[in-house]
Amino acid sequence: MEPMTFEEYLHNNKIQPSGTPVRAIERRVTEFPKIMLLRFRLDYALLLCALRLHWLSVCSADPDDVSEEALNVIYNSAMSGVIPSRAVPPEVTQKAYRTAEEDRIQALPGLDQPPNFRQYSGYLNASDGKYLHYWFVESQRNPSRDPVILWLNGGPGCSSVDGLLSELGPFHIREDGKTVFYNPWSWNKFGNVIFLESPAGVGFSYASDGNLTAGDASTAVQNYAALLDFFRKFPQFRKNDLYITGESYGGFYVPTLASVTVADGKLNLKGIAVGNGLSSNSLNDESLVFFAYYHGLIGEEVWSALRTHCCRGMPVTRENCDFQRSGLLCTNAVSGVFEIVWRIGLNVYNLYAECPGAPQGNTQWARYATDMKHLFSHARDTSMPILKRYEEDRYFKIDGDHTYFHKRELDPPCINDTRIIKYLNDPKVRQALHIPDRLPHWTVCSSIVSENYVREFNDMSPFYRRLIRSKIKILIYNGDVDMACSFLGDEWFVDKLNLDVEESRRPWRSQGQIAGFVKRYNGIDLITIKGSGHMAPKDKPVEMYKVITTFIDGNGERY
Amino acid sequence: MEPMTFEEYLHNNKIQPSGTPVRAIERRVTEFPKIMLLRFRLDYALLLCALRLHWLSVCSADPDDVSEEALNVIYNSAMSGVIPSRAVPPEVTQKAYRTAEEDRIQALPGLDQPPNFRQYSGYLNASDGKYLHYWFVESQRNPSRDPVILWLNGGPGCSSVDGLLSELGPFHIREDGKTVFYNPWSWNKFGNVIFLESPAGVGFSYASDGNLTAGDASTAVQNYAALLDFFRKFPQFRKNDLYITGESYGGFYVPTLASVTVADGKLNLKGIAVGNGLSSNSLNDESLVFFAYYHGLIGEEVWSALRTHCCRGMPVTRENCDFQRSGLLCTNAVSGVFEIVWRIGLNVYNLYAECPGAPQGNTQWARYATDMKHLFSHARDTSMPILKRYEEDRYFKIDGDHTYFHKRELDPPCINDTRIIKYLNDPKVRQALHIPDRLPHWTVCSSIVSENYVREFNDMSPFYRRLIRSKIKILIYNGDVDMACSFLGDEWFVDKLNLDVEESRRPWRSQGQIAGFVKRYNGIDLITIKGSGHMAPKDKPVEMYKVITTFIDGNGERY
Repeated sequence: MEPMTFEEYLHNNKIQPSGTPVRAIERRVTEFPKIMLLRFRLDYALLLCALRLHWLSVCSADPDDVSEEALNVIYNSAMSGVIPSRAVPPEVTQKAYRTAEEDRIQALPGLDQPPNFRQYSGYLNASDGKYLHYWFVESQRNPSRDPVILWLNGGPGCSSVDGLLSELGPFHIREDGKTVFYNPWSWNKFGNVIFLESPAGVGFSYASDGNLTAGDASTAVQNYAALLDFFRKFPQFRKNDLYITGESYGGFYVPTLASVTVADGKLNLKGIAVGNGLSSNSLNDESLVFFAYYHGLIGEEVWSALRTHCCRGMPVTRENCDFQRSGLLCTNAVSGVFEIVWRIGLNVYNLYAECPGAPQGNTQWARYATDMKHLFSHARDTSMPILKRYEEDRYFKIDGDHTYFHKRELDPPCINDTRIIKYLNDPKVRQALHIPDRLPHWTVCSSIVSENYVREFNDMSPFYRRLIRSKIKILIYNGDVDMACSFLGDEWFVDKLNLDVEESRRPWRSQGQIAGFVKRYNGIDLITIKGSGHMAPKDKPVEMYKVITTFIDGNGERY
Repeated sequence: MEPMTFEEYLHNNKIQPSGTPVRAIERRVTEFPKIMLLRFRLDYALLLCALRLHWLSVCSADPDDVSEEALNVIYNSAMSGVIPSRAVPPEVTQKAYRTAEEDRIQALPGLDQPPNFRQYSGYLNASDGKYLHYWFVESQRNPSRDPVILWLNGGPGCSSVDGLLSELGPFHIREDGKTVFYNPWSWNKFGNVIFLESPAGVGFSYASDGNLTAGDASTAVQNYAALLDFFRKFPQFRKNDLYITGESYGGFYVPTLASVTVADGKLNLKGIAVGNGLSSNSLNDESLVFFAYYHGLIGEEVWSALRTHCCRGMPVTRENCDFQRSGLLCTNAVSGVFEIVWRIGLNVYNLYAECPGAPQGNTQWARYATDMKHLFSHARDTSMPILKRYEEDRYFKIDGDHTYFHKRELDPPCINDTRIIKYLNDPKVRQALHIPDRLPHWTVCSSIVSENYVREFNDMSPFYRRLIRSKIKILIYNGDVDMACSFLGDEWFVDKLNLDVEESRRPWRSQGQIAGFVKRYNGIDLITIKGSGHMAPKDKPVEMYKVITTFIDGNGERY
């Protein structure tokens, strides 16, 4: 069967073909409680409102206290029956939701040698009519004893199956988009790995009512419900150690989900790992300005403009400057930096790698606009010409040309995933993975999810504090030439948590070479991977394998 | 004939096997005028003393004026008969110094296809008994019209023939150390290139009296004398455009030599190009601290120590900090940074490349000690334990084990030049290059030259100002992941010259990809090569070729 058109998709999923989804969302965010009640089922709305309202007071209150309250809302929901699965909805869902044995992948197209491990693909019930597609690969070592590892790619809106097929999964796809080869550094060499497409709308995941709006809190709730459902489907893994891991915007997904998991206490969570994660919006933005200058991307003219307009004429330092609230001229200077990093054709995910097809025009505008929107949220109502330009691009260039669904793809810039898109949209592959015919074309990232995503949190500190108190092991690793989420922002983030240092920063080695630097805090292992971009399991597979196995499997050995 | 032993070399060249060459040099530098008179011939001594003495007043005087006077000393010497060649000394020299036609390379061992250009190897008379080995490759395009390009590797003490065989020359050596292949991005595709081993003592260059002591001024004088002698040997190139180019410590060799050349007015100098050059000692040192932090090599602990001890508790910025004169605790903090950059096994010449054989122990100590010596010249007499340790290593580890001459090699760390060392020490190759049998083993860098080199200048600004006034075209290019001479130090250096900006900083492209950033000042083209280390013609040959041809050959075209 042909993938449906975009119009069919909208119709089938009851999505209004709104020309201004972002503006709508922004209104919702501004007039939050009232609008939310109309949009979500009551229990969700209560949960999110409470979270949001409590969160708004974070700045002036003790962060741990607020976190406690905010989290309690999730926990209470989780434990009061909101999250557990409900009756499977009709149509697609009845075909899609099946038992573990029905989800078993019998033969993966394009694979010569059958794998020496069991694997499953199907759906997990994420509550409230959301069904999240998962692809589960058992360990190649000892499935019954090895840990269960959940992997979440970021975005928001990007697919964890991309992470499977191009980063840490056992199968990688050849250039032909048809044949499959084994990745020798797959994380299922030592763990049972779940790749979860989240939230609904991402990849093959869907919402039976077509509502693909999600935010930080509702995504945590969806992910937790799906995780509970996983252990319902696969009860034999309930007693294994559980690790929640992820990348990029997974820096928000992982600690929030882990906090819910800890609070609910049903699962055997041992640790979390976050790769090139967003941990704090402001530290990520700020650090990028410094990263850009000291990596030679901006010169003395821009630096001097920043000094004048953002730093009250003082030297450009974190302490002297406020890049967000220093007025129009500062915003223009900062936007100049962001324009260079995101828009001119650099590979934002790996400064020293090529940017295939650069510059990618629309797509890059889209990602950039998303970023700018976030940075300059305070300046929305000013008459800044540069922001206006971004907004126009956002609406006209992207939304103006979507005859077919796949035109709305929001591929990450400078990353060529053509082979994976081709592979996953092959009807034989979809069939092998038990994907219902009526679901649309698979894309790396969903622009609908991304554009409608409500970013409720600004900083993950309270969640990390909570996890550390609960003795959850934490790994934060960063490829050090990534600009989307730079190592520097995460180092500042962890440093700010003010934890005791257990082992001073030192180089660590792989194959006799210095592979990065590691610093161990009481609660967090912080490690850089030298020369790696955003996707460390892809850029530096050998080094990354050493890091993750040492963390998960190493019994306190040195990196 | 067997390469001679180190003892034979010392004896033949009348070198005292001193255990403390550096201490001796340091005494000389401190008690400069008196000692210098004893060590050099009178004309040299006058020249150097005058230069040195004038230079000492640079800080308080107008730099251009001082430059004028200091340079006049060189010019006067150059024009008053000091520099022109004198009677060829006996023995080695009589065999070594020959006519151009005698210098012609008839067949280069290991090369399958004879080249489509003429090439020569022999000696140039650098005056005062110094004979510098040159290897000259004519242009593959139009030798009679193409420019003459002099290339100088740095060190001090390193060989430009290494630059020929591993960077920009037409011949590169295969791993076997025997066979030769053509480099498609050789600079002799568009120019007649002279590779000059300078000063005497480097590579196959020698001093007939065994005096291998040199400094910034005497090296400029040697180089200029050799250049004059080149045009005496090859008068047919006298009217061609001349470019003086070089790398690393060539950042000092090139502008000083160019200034002498301009002042003397005999040669047709059109421009200079400096790659990853040292331009200012203090800016190079300072910038490295920032480079290290913002590339993730040092963490918050070291940064905080720098803040406390070097920056009076204020944020770490160029403006707030004095890394050289803030006392012992600051020196310790800075030495911690330098230790990480130079000593732990990182490739200082390309942060993201491997370090073959890392850590190389002695060799790295040696280079590091050289660097430390320079940075902490003010702290020589303090009882700093860390400096003492370096000095001990310098004397005992390096000097304590030199049964054979080649044990004293000072190979650059993390660079595997084994194939080139093997090739150039093959007796058949030496014969083809017309190297006298009695000269010792060829090494990439000479520790004798390096350790005895007198660094007289601190900053090249006055020389650049002079060249700009004389309308000499200038290119400063930097691989941006080099730490030995970081792009940042050179950007700061050029910025400080306060030149008018002709073209704002912008990305430039090669093969559709962003290859770096370029900014054009009135007088200087400043350009970075993204992802390249110290040796851009080796690391990024295609990109480098575009840069150098645009500069030399481009008639003002855009990079």
